[in-house]
Amino acid sequence: MTPASRQVLKHVLNQHPSLDLVFQALSDPTRRGMLERLSRGPASVSELAQPLAMSLPAVVQHLQMLEASGLVTTRKVGRVRTCQLDAAALSQAEQWINDRRSGWERRLDRLGDYLAETDPTKGSKP
Amino acid sequence: MTPASRQVLKHVLNQHPSLDLVFQALSDPTRRGMLERLSRGPASVSELAQPLAMSLPAVVQHLQMLEASGLVTTRKVGRVRTCQLDAAALSQAEQWINDRRSGWERRLDRLGDYLAETDPTKGSKP
Repeated sequence: MTPASRQVLKHVLNQHPSLDLVFQALSDPTRRGMLERLSRGPASVSELAQPLAMSLPAVVQHLQMLEASGLVTTRKVGRVRTCQLDAAALSQAEQWINDRRSGWERRLDRLGDYLAETDPTKGSKP
Repeated sequence: MTPASRQVLKHVLNQHPSLDLVFQALSDPTRRGMLERLSRGPASVSELAQPLAMSLPAVVQHLQMLEASGLVTTRKVGRVRTCQLDAAALSQAEQWINDRRSGWERRLDRLGDYLAETDPTKGSKP
């Protein structure tokens, strides 16, 4: 990614926190494996690559998608790039799902209440 | 959730919960809009399509991705296909994110505790 396109991306992300990119990043098992590893603590790029049966450039490409989504931040000290999870981006995706799920469950609860209230076997017949 | 449906959920999750397809389905704003609508209650395909500025075949294609992921189930009664959210598939994705996030936050807490314990300003100097 060029600095210019990184800049554009950053701008877009700031405008509308991009759930598209977050969920896109999460949709791949290799990237989920990398996040799983990073949830246990920061790691260098080579540590991330070590258990993966793929070339380093392929790992870097996955890492770039994770960075673009905001799920991972990296910083370079000397010759080592260290990767770290960003819990805020994870929270944002989690919250979106949670809001939909609880909306749906509230609706089911209301439906359950309604059915219980109108249950003919519990009717108040004389 | 009833014990029976909890059992079914557990079984489905153990099989091969396709997180790839779920996150892929969630990565598109149109599909998230459709899920948002369905979180307020079931809807027919034409009700789902109504607010969207796209052709019906395009809507159906999005719907097929939602069905493939398990996030939405549909059933046809007469000529009307009704779509419904499946909370179990949402839960599965939410749980995956939550597990990673809480792993990371526990790690930060432990780090905080460690730093507090080794704080030189609170040292037990004579």
